[in-house]
Amino acid sequence: MDADVREYIDAHAGEFFAALKQWLAIPSISADPAHADDVRRSAHWLSGHLRQAGFPIAEVWETGTPAEPGLPAVFAEWPAAGSAGSSGPSGSGVSPGDAASPKASTSAPTVLIYGHHDVQPVEPLGEWDSPPFEPVERGGLLLGRGASDDKGQVLFHALGTSAWLAAHRADAPPVTLKLLIEGEEESGSTHFADLLWRERDRLSCDVIVVSDTTMWAADVPSMCTGMRGVVAAQIDVYGPERDLHSGSFGGAVPNPLHALAAILADLHDRDGRVMLPGFYDNVAGLTQAERDLFARLPFDENAWLATAGNSGAASGEAGFSTLERIWARPTAEINGMWGGHTGPGGKTIIPREAHAKLSFRLVAHQAPADVAGQLRDFAAERMPPGLDVVVTMEGPGVRPSFSPLDSPAVAAGRRAMQRAFGKEILFTREGGSGPEADLAEILGAPLVFVAVGLDEDRIHAPNERVDMELLLKGAQTAAYLWDELAAGTS
Amino acid sequence: MDADVREYIDAHAGEFFAALKQWLAIPSISADPAHADDVRRSAHWLSGHLRQAGFPIAEVWETGTPAEPGLPAVFAEWPAAGSAGSSGPSGSGVSPGDAASPKASTSAPTVLIYGHHDVQPVEPLGEWDSPPFEPVERGGLLLGRGASDDKGQVLFHALGTSAWLAAHRADAPPVTLKLLIEGEEESGSTHFADLLWRERDRLSCDVIVVSDTTMWAADVPSMCTGMRGVVAAQIDVYGPERDLHSGSFGGAVPNPLHALAAILADLHDRDGRVMLPGFYDNVAGLTQAERDLFARLPFDENAWLATAGNSGAASGEAGFSTLERIWARPTAEINGMWGGHTGPGGKTIIPREAHAKLSFRLVAHQAPADVAGQLRDFAAERMPPGLDVVVTMEGPGVRPSFSPLDSPAVAAGRRAMQRAFGKEILFTREGGSGPEADLAEILGAPLVFVAVGLDEDRIHAPNERVDMELLLKGAQTAAYLWDELAAGTS
Repeated sequence: MDADVREYIDAHAGEFFAALKQWLAIPSISADPAHADDVRRSAHWLSGHLRQAGFPIAEVWETGTPAEPGLPAVFAEWPAAGSAGSSGPSGSGVSPGDAASPKASTSAPTVLIYGHHDVQPVEPLGEWDSPPFEPVERGGLLLGRGASDDKGQVLFHALGTSAWLAAHRADAPPVTLKLLIEGEEESGSTHFADLLWRERDRLSCDVIVVSDTTMWAADVPSMCTGMRGVVAAQIDVYGPERDLHSGSFGGAVPNPLHALAAILADLHDRDGRVMLPGFYDNVAGLTQAERDLFARLPFDENAWLATAGNSGAASGEAGFSTLERIWARPTAEINGMWGGHTGPGGKTIIPREAHAKLSFRLVAHQAPADVAGQLRDFAAERMPPGLDVVVTMEGPGVRPSFSPLDSPAVAAGRRAMQRAFGKEILFTREGGSGPEADLAEILGAPLVFVAVGLDEDRIHAPNERVDMELLLKGAQTAAYLWDELAAGTS
Repeated sequence: MDADVREYIDAHAGEFFAALKQWLAIPSISADPAHADDVRRSAHWLSGHLRQAGFPIAEVWETGTPAEPGLPAVFAEWPAAGSAGSSGPSGSGVSPGDAASPKASTSAPTVLIYGHHDVQPVEPLGEWDSPPFEPVERGGLLLGRGASDDKGQVLFHALGTSAWLAAHRADAPPVTLKLLIEGEEESGSTHFADLLWRERDRLSCDVIVVSDTTMWAADVPSMCTGMRGVVAAQIDVYGPERDLHSGSFGGAVPNPLHALAAILADLHDRDGRVMLPGFYDNVAGLTQAERDLFARLPFDENAWLATAGNSGAASGEAGFSTLERIWARPTAEINGMWGGHTGPGGKTIIPREAHAKLSFRLVAHQAPADVAGQLRDFAAERMPPGLDVVVTMEGPGVRPSFSPLDSPAVAAGRRAMQRAFGKEILFTREGGSGPEADLAEILGAPLVFVAVGLDEDRIHAPNERVDMELLLKGAQTAAYLWDELAAGTS
């Protein structure tokens, strides 16, 4: 059966890349209002392509409001063989595993595939070897904006679905497939949560497959199992009504910059642990299994430090490796600070105020709102009499996402990748944040990250590219994944 | 004899204030290049006035170089009766008391009076009740820019000298009087140290009388015994070559803002003591006598806090009162800091660099250069691998000045004031810095601060004024001071 899938994919690779190049030629830059029509064209191209691939339902979903329109997402659905039209979650073996939720039926599970069809801006244009929206093949790579992030990784699901159907001589997939392909991911997913709430019923599913991440390397296939969340804050310390002369007052009144420095210096202990009381209370610790698997990744710390333009040593929370620190441990970072005299020369003042911007990377199951409260208390407790502190959160933050290694969905994804790559699949996480946690939270389904991008794909940079062979492996993985998810955890 | 002095001063008060008003009408603003000619006019007015008062020598001394001219000072000299023309230090009873220096002669001591004839700018003009350079009398106050700081306090020395001569029917003072009246004090004393070095021989003296400070209150006459010095520095912390994404790197590489905050927070211990190793090594501690005298000043801490626009409590080094803290204890203050993202919204970066400006108030006998070395070591020791720190001093700093309460010069000044005010004289210090330490250092003579300004004189602010009665007390003090200094410490 796997041979049939491979054979179909090989036979249709030419068609697949031709279609992908068509799509890549549409400059769907969501951050640039001048490209709004291109984002819309991109959505319509995709819905047309999915209909052509056999999806009975493929729609362009506008976002935002008529007064303040957003950019459109694409929704497509292909009910599983034997199911009755548009289906909600089935409660099959790959459900979230919440024992309290009633199993709705025994039919095939519903799988929602998440990706995005908008792309990053292309500046600096002069650094591209070929025009960003005129995709070209070069030595097994397909170059063009969006090739890896994320059009290539969206489109392999269509090829994989066709391959499964051909290999099984079936006219419907073994699971109900839903695709939700966003059009604003590269510009902050502004309307995404609203869209999820609005279309929650049609989006209901048993598992969410996210194809917008990377593998460790072409020869080290891996799955991402989580992304850190983030919450950002500003601390403002206010002192005297005006700047004071440090000759007249210095040494006898509190200085807002000192008070701010004390808060910031107190944020970590000598072991690099974040000192907000309660900060770690809901942190899911790394399991020994995950640490062992991280440790098997061929990580060159010096090369990584070089990418940070840092000639020194890695540093951070004691007791954790660099990969564990950036993937699986929460942090507190000062992103900026200012106050008092910052121009040339000296000015001997006690400044009236001091400010800092901070962000906290969060891991499951920390909640952004909890950190806000912890930081407020922490700062207030450190204010000497005569100074006031105000802590303001920058937006609601992004929740961390995490799929336990031993969850049925992750296990199914790992088996599917293993069949495609013929190798053991390792695990990674990502240090940064996307809209994935919203998906899991609002739709109430577990995440599984199946993707074939690479760190060297130069996403967000000039000369974005994708390994064409890996996209075909992605299509294979998709085909096997429907089997594996249909089979559940058995 | 004191009655004769008083009588003379009362009889000539009208003339004195008429002359002072003439001088105050000259807008000798040294910070504004447009007023350079006015500063020059002011110098010539003063030298003319002193010649008229009987000074055999009264010169206008240009400063700077022909290529980069400064603003002129005034030098005047009146040799003591029986001395041979321009005299150096006499080695009388009020000499610095250095046992190793040979006593040059037994003649009268040489006294150098320091003050300045330039004034502060007058903005905001709209807040003046009457034009700043059209002096007017109002209820015992003389209003006008420079009335207190420092023309009024310079001129009382001429009146006091005349009074002494009249009371003693003498044609020369009992000490050799020298006046050095600077023209750039309000614009940083840019050329002052050079002038002192250049004219060191003609300026040589046994004691320096500074009349550019304040008393505690009109009914609490006091003498200043010291001024804090200051030295300023900038700390620059450098990390990665560019700002890093905190999602990809946060938690595993050092953050320059954290490292800077740690240095700044470490600057003080919980008792408010400065933690630079060796910082206090050369600090002359407060004597119990000085603490007792400070404690007798009627200090209203809440009123003082209100002038700082601060509704909280005073704070600072444990074990010291507010007055002790601002007058007699050294400090470390952060004057400004900046780094990373400081604009609206969040930006989740690890910034490439972080900066702070600091200043240290110094007390005798701390040296600015020592603090520079201490700060460099302190910052370097706190740098984690991967970050670099650079400490740059802003200029050479200003040394602290201090006249011990039990020094002969201070004792003589105190007796002179006591005769003028008929009250016990208390002691203060000043928290800020002037060129006085240069005077003492370069001329090698002790300082005594004799002044009748008040904190409520609004110096540097609109509606500067001086208490006319206090200027006459200043003239009396000057007359008695020549006696007291001539009598030495007996």
